[in-house]
Amino acid sequence: MPNPTAAILIIGDEILSGRTQDTNSHFLAGELTKAGIDLREIRVVPDSMAAIVAAVNALRAAHDHVFTSGGIGPTHDDITADAVAAAFGLPLAVREDARAILARHYAQAGLEFNAARQRMARIPEGARLIDNPISAAPGFSLGNVHVMAGVPNIFRAMVAAVLPGLAAGRPVLARSLRVERGEGVIAEPLAALAAEFPDLSFGSYPFVRDGIHGSNLVVRGTDAARLEAAFARLEALFAGPGA
Amino acid sequence: MPNPTAAILIIGDEILSGRTQDTNSHFLAGELTKAGIDLREIRVVPDSMAAIVAAVNALRAAHDHVFTSGGIGPTHDDITADAVAAAFGLPLAVREDARAILARHYAQAGLEFNAARQRMARIPEGARLIDNPISAAPGFSLGNVHVMAGVPNIFRAMVAAVLPGLAAGRPVLARSLRVERGEGVIAEPLAALAAEFPDLSFGSYPFVRDGIHGSNLVVRGTDAARLEAAFARLEALFAGPGA
Repeated sequence: MPNPTAAILIIGDEILSGRTQDTNSHFLAGELTKAGIDLREIRVVPDSMAAIVAAVNALRAAHDHVFTSGGIGPTHDDITADAVAAAFGLPLAVREDARAILARHYAQAGLEFNAARQRMARIPEGARLIDNPISAAPGFSLGNVHVMAGVPNIFRAMVAAVLPGLAAGRPVLARSLRVERGEGVIAEPLAALAAEFPDLSFGSYPFVRDGIHGSNLVVRGTDAARLEAAFARLEALFAGPGA
Repeated sequence: MPNPTAAILIIGDEILSGRTQDTNSHFLAGELTKAGIDLREIRVVPDSMAAIVAAVNALRAAHDHVFTSGGIGPTHDDITADAVAAAFGLPLAVREDARAILARHYAQAGLEFNAARQRMARIPEGARLIDNPISAAPGFSLGNVHVMAGVPNIFRAMVAAVLPGLAAGRPVLARSLRVERGEGVIAEPLAALAAEFPDLSFGSYPFVRDGIHGSNLVVRGTDAARLEAAFARLEALFAGPGA
């Protein structure tokens, strides 16, 4: 059975303006690989209702899972919950369990549970809450869309809450070989080896460091024995003296 | 006149597997903001012909410019030139000027100009070459699609070659204020101020550091006088004692 597929949707003007480097998608990409879920696409869109709705609907139709990051705070530019509800054509309203979680959190902190903070208890109808152990405001899963915070430590905590509940596939294993030769001389034998192992993927990631042209060759696949067989061939081709 | 719009398309399994953190889109996002080109979307897709063709065609129809990164080297997984040619329905063949650039480069380096390296001279019909001052293999612009390398220093050199030739808009200016209060108390006055300045964009980017809940408030726009007027109001609301 093929592994389930996934897409990540990063929501936020601050990424597109170049102000902030997105690191959440890189983190989640690694977690999905370990879980055996094939990440097929990452998209970054602005804090725009039309853009978020279009991306959510395109990605949830094309993939088994969609993970979103960003736009679920209390300020006017936090419109992800509204957009996901609109994408599904479902109502969005303050939900009692989410409101209670937030009310307790702010009471303990001695802070007013004002209208802006109550906005974070608005959850699309039928969604399941995602626990936020850091700042209480929950994320949610609606169908195959998992809506999480943009702040990296909260995002990571939400990923840890969501991933174990998803049907996992076979983890994708990888072996990598650093070769200090230019890609131009690696290319032909590498392509021939890749053709012999169509069930594995072979990547070549070139570098130039201290004047040395080289490449990191990476073999990936879900079958450990096949991976080891291919990697042994790769080492025989490229490792050792003259490498 | 509104600023031109753009999308970035990052091509590479190594980003989606979590092996490599993409930094090219963050770099280019900053450059586009300075140039007055509005970046509306970033997509990351795998080294797959169907995925690249679909993304190129969707993005070039929706935006004034598309910038791609990755997949133009000599190895079997470098299929971006083939995919862009297919997206435009144009033939791809070794082009004499590109071949001559590469032949000279390898002759100077004392390296064989073999079949894999000649592959990098394949350019879709009608494209304009993008200079690669680092490793010679050129990128190309075809219509509104600018095809560049994935290796960060080569990508940056190609961006420097391409951007000055594009019609620029008005640079998006930004002012930012660090406020050590939770977003929940900032949200309502910030939303009211944003409503007074619909021509500017107001973002709130929360942080928790050393136990302090705060937010970086960012105002963006192309009109310097309007930006300063809004920023003065923002400071009056949130700066000073008690902030």
